[in-house]
Amino acid sequence: MPHETFQTVTGQINWNAPMYRLYEKAKKNSWNPANIDFTQDKEDFQNLRDEERIAALPLVSSFSAGEEAVTVDILPMVQVMARQGRLEDTMFLTTFMHDEAKHTEMFSRWQHAVGVGDMDLSVFHGDSYKRIFYEALPESMERLNTDDSPEAIIRAATVYNMIVEGTLAESGYYSFRQIFKKADLLPGILEGIDYLNKDEGRHLQFGIYTIQRLVVGNDAYFKVFNDYMDELWEHAYGVVDYLTSLADEQRQTANFESSLEIDSDMMKDYALKQFNIRKSKVERARKYQNVEELETEATKELQQQ
Amino acid sequence: MPHETFQTVTGQINWNAPMYRLYEKAKKNSWNPANIDFTQDKEDFQNLRDEERIAALPLVSSFSAGEEAVTVDILPMVQVMARQGRLEDTMFLTTFMHDEAKHTEMFSRWQHAVGVGDMDLSVFHGDSYKRIFYEALPESMERLNTDDSPEAIIRAATVYNMIVEGTLAESGYYSFRQIFKKADLLPGILEGIDYLNKDEGRHLQFGIYTIQRLVVGNDAYFKVFNDYMDELWEHAYGVVDYLTSLADEQRQTANFESSLEIDSDMMKDYALKQFNIRKSKVERARKYQNVEELETEATKELQQQ
Repeated sequence: MPHETFQTVTGQINWNAPMYRLYEKAKKNSWNPANIDFTQDKEDFQNLRDEERIAALPLVSSFSAGEEAVTVDILPMVQVMARQGRLEDTMFLTTFMHDEAKHTEMFSRWQHAVGVGDMDLSVFHGDSYKRIFYEALPESMERLNTDDSPEAIIRAATVYNMIVEGTLAESGYYSFRQIFKKADLLPGILEGIDYLNKDEGRHLQFGIYTIQRLVVGNDAYFKVFNDYMDELWEHAYGVVDYLTSLADEQRQTANFESSLEIDSDMMKDYALKQFNIRKSKVERARKYQNVEELETEATKELQQQ
Repeated sequence: MPHETFQTVTGQINWNAPMYRLYEKAKKNSWNPANIDFTQDKEDFQNLRDEERIAALPLVSSFSAGEEAVTVDILPMVQVMARQGRLEDTMFLTTFMHDEAKHTEMFSRWQHAVGVGDMDLSVFHGDSYKRIFYEALPESMERLNTDDSPEAIIRAATVYNMIVEGTLAESGYYSFRQIFKKADLLPGILEGIDYLNKDEGRHLQFGIYTIQRLVVGNDAYFKVFNDYMDELWEHAYGVVDYLTSLADEQRQTANFESSLEIDSDMMKDYALKQFNIRKSKVERARKYQNVEELETEATKELQQQ
């Protein structure tokens, strides 16, 4: 389709659009994975026993594939926003995509630095992980290439932003900190995790806002969101269950006192908590009469942050 | 399509890939349009006579629409690279897209600052401009959504990187400097232009490398590139001709001595020179036997920069 008009020529950027505020925030919080020092991580990792590495590698393996998947899978969402003439959303998503590339880089750098760059870590991807990252995510995202209906966008943002980012990545950060920060190990990757966490905060705001503006005043669309969340929960829980079971097994067979503490129940509880927070955030859209009200509130919130 | 494998899980990023080197370079050269001070530009612009503004507004109008167009139109290229499993290219393109969003922002900020934010500047888009930016660019780029053949990629990179960026944008920077730097006016937008120029340098390297790796050892593909360049030159020249004519006309009817010097012939010559440089850069691919040779050279060059 030829271009018919350009927003910044016939007028200007909508400087108060929630997604433009988020774009400004993203620019200010730029960071570079190349500046993280992994020297101590290398030493720490070499000093870990084989059994203890099992606490780190499956988590890293889940993150690496996850970040690589989302770097590629966000593209159809960007195209939908561009096609629908949502310039400010498109601009924000350019920072979003670049964040994902940096996250992919961060984990690949870490693997390279600690000496597992050429190891095949895909053995740590269980069935639930595969269901979400190999199948549901690309399926829902690629649907946007030919279908930009509200339903398709809601489903895409649900699996991408609410499950992969809002439930699994958030639980992953928590696990990293619980296991390695408490043990005073791997400071480099923990620094990276802090940056990732901030970036994901903005991504979640995009996802929540995008779903909210489509479900405002529409119970049928709200049900699409809620049903898909519930459908995906089984697999999301499965991912956490698999990762914690791996660690539990290793601990039971190990014949030494490990410095790493892994509380499986706490991690499962945390994941459920995150899942419920995402649901309730979207639920808040119910208090608005229309998109304008939602936008005004979202802009206000973003200006206060 | 479901994901089958992830490069950073079964292995790692190819740290020496030319496009990965370019990605690293992009991260180091990050800048923020929000930090540019347009106070002096506002004063300068208000002091210009109406006739003199005609030297600034058509150029700004061409850039604004151009940057907005390329922000959106690069998306199918990113999807092709992702689909073809070119992770390093995809990562570089996340910086590329973000650059384009910042360029769009820069011009919109300037228009807002000097008080023409709500003026419709599309009156300054002539037929040649429309042929390239409204039609040829989205046509060639959107073709990539359904066709990722070498021919389709070559045509897309030709209009996008070689004509729009490598010929027209470069000529636009030159004009800005010739007209306003010499007159010691509009320091803010000139600062922005310097940043844009650096960003475009990397974009051109992407375009040249992408075309080169597809035409290496293939005369038919080389012809696709050359023919499309020649076909587009007429319109590219038309853009420069139209913009310089506008300025010439204004000067002839003005009854005052302007502080702005506009040498139309010099600008047309500059555009032709840029066009020929792009052609000869791609032509260099002929000296390589295969893509491996080209890649080795490209990596070497990027490491020296």
